[in-house]
Amino acid sequence: MKPFIYNIPVKVYFGEGQLSNLGRELSKYGKKVLLTYGGGSIKKIGLYDEVIKEIRDAGLEVFELSGIEPNPRIESVREGARICKEENIDVVLAVGGGSTIDASKFICAGAKVDFDPWDFLDLEKRAKIEDALPLLTILTLSATGSEMDNGGVISNLKTNEKLSNGSMCMLPKVSFLDPKNTYSVSEYQTACGSADILSHILEVYFTTENDLFMLDCVMEGLMKTVIKYAPIAMKDPTNYEARANLMWTSSWAINGFINGSKSTAWSCHPMEHELSAFYDITHGHGLAILTPRWMQYCLNDENIYKYVQFGVNVFGIDKNLSDREIAEKAIEKLSEFLFNDLKLQSTLKDVNINDENFAIMAKKACKGKESIKGFRELTPEDIENIYRMCL
Amino acid sequence: MKPFIYNIPVKVYFGEGQLSNLGRELSKYGKKVLLTYGGGSIKKIGLYDEVIKEIRDAGLEVFELSGIEPNPRIESVREGARICKEENIDVVLAVGGGSTIDASKFICAGAKVDFDPWDFLDLEKRAKIEDALPLLTILTLSATGSEMDNGGVISNLKTNEKLSNGSMCMLPKVSFLDPKNTYSVSEYQTACGSADILSHILEVYFTTENDLFMLDCVMEGLMKTVIKYAPIAMKDPTNYEARANLMWTSSWAINGFINGSKSTAWSCHPMEHELSAFYDITHGHGLAILTPRWMQYCLNDENIYKYVQFGVNVFGIDKNLSDREIAEKAIEKLSEFLFNDLKLQSTLKDVNINDENFAIMAKKACKGKESIKGFRELTPEDIENIYRMCL
Repeated sequence: MKPFIYNIPVKVYFGEGQLSNLGRELSKYGKKVLLTYGGGSIKKIGLYDEVIKEIRDAGLEVFELSGIEPNPRIESVREGARICKEENIDVVLAVGGGSTIDASKFICAGAKVDFDPWDFLDLEKRAKIEDALPLLTILTLSATGSEMDNGGVISNLKTNEKLSNGSMCMLPKVSFLDPKNTYSVSEYQTACGSADILSHILEVYFTTENDLFMLDCVMEGLMKTVIKYAPIAMKDPTNYEARANLMWTSSWAINGFINGSKSTAWSCHPMEHELSAFYDITHGHGLAILTPRWMQYCLNDENIYKYVQFGVNVFGIDKNLSDREIAEKAIEKLSEFLFNDLKLQSTLKDVNINDENFAIMAKKACKGKESIKGFRELTPEDIENIYRMCL
Repeated sequence: MKPFIYNIPVKVYFGEGQLSNLGRELSKYGKKVLLTYGGGSIKKIGLYDEVIKEIRDAGLEVFELSGIEPNPRIESVREGARICKEENIDVVLAVGGGSTIDASKFICAGAKVDFDPWDFLDLEKRAKIEDALPLLTILTLSATGSEMDNGGVISNLKTNEKLSNGSMCMLPKVSFLDPKNTYSVSEYQTACGSADILSHILEVYFTTENDLFMLDCVMEGLMKTVIKYAPIAMKDPTNYEARANLMWTSSWAINGFINGSKSTAWSCHPMEHELSAFYDITHGHGLAILTPRWMQYCLNDENIYKYVQFGVNVFGIDKNLSDREIAEKAIEKLSEFLFNDLKLQSTLKDVNINDENFAIMAKKACKGKESIKGFRELTPEDIENIYRMCL
């Protein structure tokens, strides 16, 4: 077990009626606010008006950047950074899901430099993120955990790249998590978000590093929560308990707490980033298709104990079965959850992806390295095999 | 489910070899450091020399307050606050367990006021804690969680009072958690610390408020961790894995995360505070004696579901048994853990406490109110009954 640093100073207002604190929290950082959001769903649910009222009541000046895309693009980041610099913005308020928040993080960082913000992400340049405008968020989708972590993923459609980077200075200062703001999330997006949350936990849970049993227990609890509540939220979208459990779980799945000292590379995320970089599919759906195949592909005699632990503790599989039976059953149960309970289509063909780009995507998934050194080391050949299993 | 605010901006250096960051972290707050510690065990384990070296290497000036007692007394707080004011201390560094850290919190607050720091605790005066010197901690005992929360408990032997209070300004800025610093903790103190951790979780787990299933899962994971590792640490005191799991669990048992929106009053803690206020027994041991009796006393048809959940999920009791059987078995399993595995004496008689002060202690446990409104409302008569069950 290696040493680690725990440091997550995000203040979270969780639950209903907390937006009355927004003006006061924003005012701590200045007078000029850039409000960022996506396609306008926040107007439909009345959140936009509420936010504008709070900002105006606090005597702050508001600028806007709307239209941030799912799988947010570098063009939006550039535009946001431009506004921040031209208008001398003091603080950015992101209202939306992970895409809006991720883009806003790089807007905050981009506002502080003279170069193109893509340089923060570009694998060769990899410019250091040393300063950023303060960011506050209002979450409307339980999925990426961006509201409580310091990273983000940005797409560049010109280069077919979807890349991530992070920095403590991009960590949100304050996040508002009101489960009611996710009531209007569609059945499909609820499923994709839940698959994303689950994947964040599985990427950490399935590593070869020995770490804290305590954190494994926490991860199992978070996974049981997703498995219990995602189908409820899909069926009954205004179920507060379900939305609340998914929302708080989304934050804790990726804010760093469950990692402890683990530093193993993630596997499914980089593989999925290529799917959505090439085909612009929904991230969580891509993860759902990949994850059970990745688990199947990685299974061997050395790591089977982890599958057994997962199967017994998360799905309640009878521990008296053989290890191999438990492992197979665990993958089966996970698939059932993703493809039956979450009703996600289970193959790449279903989402109109064929094998034509597999070779180049597999290479790109290694992000300039020779392999992904995750739970099991994956060469581009392995990755191509996994993509093929998903057809 | 009520709204809540999550806000725990403590930076934690977890693991070995992290003390090299101490000088840099202290320097952020000034030049003059007050080092506080207890009876000198930190000298025996070599930690004192290491700390002094780090402080001196950073060019800081160090003052000392040693001899802070278990169940720390208001006299130590007064003395620490006096030094801070006289020497213009910039930052306090507490090296020890919960007692040293709790006392240091009130030293930090006491340094900022002209009145007696007991006024912060006194039930009638209850002075507001609005400002405090910055506090850093180096933990040497896994128990109270004081390294990551904003409260503390101070004893006044003159008035036979053991009282608590808290404030965000007393929250440690940085805490150093090196499991090796707990290697020398005795078998008995390891047992008491573990009973304390378990009690912090049980006080939140056993409430009547509906809250997040996710947090119940986390609590069950933390409890399983204590149950698994406390006996290992007792048998094999230099077992890093056991010490690490207990240490990180102690912080998360009480830093506020597991509470969510729950605000129910705790029950066993105020009852125990009277035991150690009157008899100066070890807090965790008092809690161990009280907890199973409290659970037995509170059990009824309305709340039995919580016992069932606890028994099945924490102790793996067969869920096909009747609720009553599961509940009884759960209390039995908990008692076995506390009195067999942790080897703690199980009755008040064993620790030389008889019934002579039960009536006054029961009244005082209500802290000036008519009852403890916890998992089940407890009047002084109820509390006396529970004390009697412990004889």
